[in-house]
Amino acid sequence: MTTIQDIADKLGISKGTVSKALNGASDISETLQKQILETAVELGYTKLRRYKKPSRRLCILVQKDNIEYKEPHHFAYDIVMGFRQMAEPAGCEVDVVPLDVNTQRETSYDVFMLQNDYSGGFALGFSLNEPWIRDFQTSRTPIVLYDNHIVGNPSTAYVGIDNDEGMYLAVGHLKELGHHKIGYLSSALGSHIMQIRHRAFFQAMHRHGLKADPSYSGCSYYLSECMEKHLPRFLGMGMTAVICCQDTFASAAITQCRQLGYQVPRDISIIGFDDIPICPYTSPPLTTVRQDRIELGKSGYYALNSLMNGVSIGTVLLHADLIVRESTKQPAAGN
Amino acid sequence: MTTIQDIADKLGISKGTVSKALNGASDISETLQKQILETAVELGYTKLRRYKKPSRRLCILVQKDNIEYKEPHHFAYDIVMGFRQMAEPAGCEVDVVPLDVNTQRETSYDVFMLQNDYSGGFALGFSLNEPWIRDFQTSRTPIVLYDNHIVGNPSTAYVGIDNDEGMYLAVGHLKELGHHKIGYLSSALGSHIMQIRHRAFFQAMHRHGLKADPSYSGCSYYLSECMEKHLPRFLGMGMTAVICCQDTFASAAITQCRQLGYQVPRDISIIGFDDIPICPYTSPPLTTVRQDRIELGKSGYYALNSLMNGVSIGTVLLHADLIVRESTKQPAAGN
Repeated sequence: MTTIQDIADKLGISKGTVSKALNGASDISETLQKQILETAVELGYTKLRRYKKPSRRLCILVQKDNIEYKEPHHFAYDIVMGFRQMAEPAGCEVDVVPLDVNTQRETSYDVFMLQNDYSGGFALGFSLNEPWIRDFQTSRTPIVLYDNHIVGNPSTAYVGIDNDEGMYLAVGHLKELGHHKIGYLSSALGSHIMQIRHRAFFQAMHRHGLKADPSYSGCSYYLSECMEKHLPRFLGMGMTAVICCQDTFASAAITQCRQLGYQVPRDISIIGFDDIPICPYTSPPLTTVRQDRIELGKSGYYALNSLMNGVSIGTVLLHADLIVRESTKQPAAGN
Repeated sequence: MTTIQDIADKLGISKGTVSKALNGASDISETLQKQILETAVELGYTKLRRYKKPSRRLCILVQKDNIEYKEPHHFAYDIVMGFRQMAEPAGCEVDVVPLDVNTQRETSYDVFMLQNDYSGGFALGFSLNEPWIRDFQTSRTPIVLYDNHIVGNPSTAYVGIDNDEGMYLAVGHLKELGHHKIGYLSSALGSHIMQIRHRAFFQAMHRHGLKADPSYSGCSYYLSECMEKHLPRFLGMGMTAVICCQDTFASAAITQCRQLGYQVPRDISIIGFDDIPICPYTSPPLTTVRQDRIELGKSGYYALNSLMNGVSIGTVLLHADLIVRESTKQPAAGN
């Protein structure tokens, strides 16, 4: 186990200086403090080893450009609440830390955690190309990622819903209603979860014995492009139902269908994904695959607590739940 | 919520008789008791609703024909211990219930649990064709399955290691040593886990940029057939390494290679799966993918406790860990 002496020896400075830097004393230059923290991380010195006290400081790292959490109608609000509901009664202090790509570029993940006295983190809203996703391949401070999966690092865990199950339920519901030609609308495949859902769609179609060649999916970075290019293409192909990667896409698809002269669900059925708070209020109310966000937050704490206690949980998936509202019904006669 | 009165009404008998049957009174005929229990289950009456007392009775259901647990060197011994280590301090009573196919045929799962006062179960060693696997599609008494996955029933959860990760690490280790032609030996694909590992092998080869057509795997129900048919075929194809679905297969493969005039690891590298207690003592000691069985047991309790508290965890996967011993090394020059 790395000690303060090891860090001092490596840098040729005194133990006192190292200790001051690790405790954030103000009489040390920023450059020296950064050098000491980086050396500490390089040598494998982490907060977990440093503190024996029962109260632990944890953080929820929110990529603020990708996900909102401050208001009850924001997607991550309940996830944060679920995490707190488990962590705080267990004696942990929880900070919510909004950050962006620049924060990640300036400081590596392990250094950031050491600098701020955090024993572990729960990361929300990270897309695949962010700097810390690379850090998480080799980081040593326990981190749980919502909807991101790091392979091969025992200090990381992935929490999410079972998207294969969700897609299986969605396709099964449509098949039971009598739909056979089903399309899938997706945003670009630049996040782990978009890749997973895209694959899950084809797998679910296959498992239900329905045809789906690559033309059955339409992916675009811009929602508008999905609506203007892929949705009309699907309608032209005679699709009677469309599953969307997210509720926002589904809600836009309902509007776009109406503008193109198609009524939902009479002419075409639409299913979303996530069950965001708006879903009961779209017109018609949206059938969707629910992610229980309180439970996701609770599972996030459980996984983090397990990692911090040396039980190397890598993946926790919640059951998906299909919420049937009014945007789906049997296809019109003749289809 | 179903009451005793509902059951009495449905059968046209008195509440007292229903209550006696549910409490296992001896002055009721076996036929009548069975009828009452089956009706109770049909109407959705479960132990979870019946008991409010804090102490809960749980059971570990062991398919005794497939898995052993009684001695420290048995595979499931540590899994049972890990489960108890979490459940008992939490105030649960844990019974270990060995059963076979006949027990499952005689009584349905929900009826069995109701009859024996169990609020939840942890199932070890069930293969895909056993009667209760069908029951688990629709059962209501929480059940966690080690290495079995039921899709779409929120009262079930799956606990295991991340086999995709394990296979990725195993293939990566061999590739780093310089191996390119790698075969996969497996028992028949009649269990969930054998199917998962088989698919994981091809996926890992693909992700590491290595060739693997269907001839690169050999599956047989009988270990002897794997050794006599597929292993010589692999050697004939110029394979320099073989990954086996289980340590018992890997251990047999080492012996068989020796009898065929090949030395492990000089002529061929062998990797197993599971890290059963024998692995450090094979000759040479076996490189293998570890399942931490204590942690699997602990995770089993966690998942069950979550289900019983309405947090619908569906899957918990532990990180896989590659244990490098002496059955793997770089291939001989010329390969």
